[in-house]
Amino acid sequence: MEQKPLILVTNDDGYQAKGLGKLVELMRSIGEVLVVSTEEVMSAKGHSVTTAPSMKVSLMEISPGYKKFVCNGTPVDCVKIGYQWLSDRKPDIVVSGINHGTNASTNVIYSGTMAAAIEACMDGINAVGFSLDSYESDADFDHLDDYIIAITKDVLENGLPEGICLNVNFPQRSEEPIKGIKICRQAKGKWIEKFTGCQSEQGGTCLWQGAEFVYEDEGDDTDFSAMKNNYISIVPTQFDLTARQYFGEIGRFEHIMKKK
Amino acid sequence: MEQKPLILVTNDDGYQAKGLGKLVELMRSIGEVLVVSTEEVMSAKGHSVTTAPSMKVSLMEISPGYKKFVCNGTPVDCVKIGYQWLSDRKPDIVVSGINHGTNASTNVIYSGTMAAAIEACMDGINAVGFSLDSYESDADFDHLDDYIIAITKDVLENGLPEGICLNVNFPQRSEEPIKGIKICRQAKGKWIEKFTGCQSEQGGTCLWQGAEFVYEDEGDDTDFSAMKNNYISIVPTQFDLTARQYFGEIGRFEHIMKKK
Repeated sequence: MEQKPLILVTNDDGYQAKGLGKLVELMRSIGEVLVVSTEEVMSAKGHSVTTAPSMKVSLMEISPGYKKFVCNGTPVDCVKIGYQWLSDRKPDIVVSGINHGTNASTNVIYSGTMAAAIEACMDGINAVGFSLDSYESDADFDHLDDYIIAITKDVLENGLPEGICLNVNFPQRSEEPIKGIKICRQAKGKWIEKFTGCQSEQGGTCLWQGAEFVYEDEGDDTDFSAMKNNYISIVPTQFDLTARQYFGEIGRFEHIMKKK
Repeated sequence: MEQKPLILVTNDDGYQAKGLGKLVELMRSIGEVLVVSTEEVMSAKGHSVTTAPSMKVSLMEISPGYKKFVCNGTPVDCVKIGYQWLSDRKPDIVVSGINHGTNASTNVIYSGTMAAAIEACMDGINAVGFSLDSYESDADFDHLDDYIIAITKDVLENGLPEGICLNVNFPQRSEEPIKGIKICRQAKGKWIEKFTGCQSEQGGTCLWQGAEFVYEDEGDDTDFSAMKNNYISIVPTQFDLTARQYFGEIGRFEHIMKKK
């Protein structure tokens, strides 16, 4: 009998998140599923890893072809522990999410969900992060089933180019069905914080921060634009941050000491 | 009188780190200096940001043209607070480090030092992360003075292309002087963890993790290769993670639902 694909599932919204539950349900229809979820909400933890010897991992559920663990580390820790400690074989794919909240645009930089996918990609494992453009804890994910299954099966069958994973962002459910999938670039945009300070009793200033995301990109080829128009966006996402196109312009630094 | 450039200095090794002290000393010879350092060691915190309203910032030192604050957030928080809350004007440059430990190769992904530089870059501010290939708390930084000053002055004078910052890695001090600067690409490599488990009294498994970095790149155009040969490496580092070169290959995903 052919061995079923091993699917490692993780997220950054904690083990009770509805989006994780949906992703696990869908993955169990495709293969053997190992879940390693964060214990707490780890949104915006980026590619943080735990360096202190303080991690704990506990088995929460087990049934044939399915195990669910919870870990007090970050999403990146969960991925590492998943395939380096909890599994005898390398996963055929790592899927992360479904995140409650978009990871389009520069959100990908802060995202624990995408960091988990990128970590797997760095170790040569096919990886996809799924995110919905809604922060609601009770968000509706049912319009995504067919797409998530089709994308996952395609990656399992055909793989991904070396050095990239997929950042998949879904529009919220609306009156009309999703129009399709678009391959996109990451939109320009940024979070602008609004800090409010008060005097701390122990000295210093306590800060409360609100934040607003500002898109700075009018392009129709971005992940933001796709979602706004009820398409699913897929950004092929790399961890090689080298901006080779600027080697020439930056070349001047090789000579700065000779100039003096 | 011409206004001196405003230099925002941060790091991820905490406010007492020797590398931070060296960078502050050098920057004070160039311009007005605002330091916002992490309170604790925040190595490997990646692009993590604090979302809970729990940040605290305290003034530690002040003299003409110089202020030093400490913050209990992450390096990215320090940058945000530095120019959005503590300063009336936008910094002319953000410098981060000098990190105790290399941020060459894929270390850049995990690095709080580089995340701080990238965060500034995302907001259109010139930014440079400086790191030394030594984890020693008492590491020798004195062979770097002229290079750090020359690089910083060049960036202040000529700027950087939009959307990139510099990841500068220095070799340890050796018998021979540094040979020069090389513009490099990020080397391939990864951390391999070694987990050891023990039964927790509260149930579950506690994990101790050691880790070893493995270079997987023989190229002579990498940051790793430059440092190994006693050169300073500079990688132009981007936050746009879009792997445009794979748009064609990934294009198949636009049709997966039609295939069914």
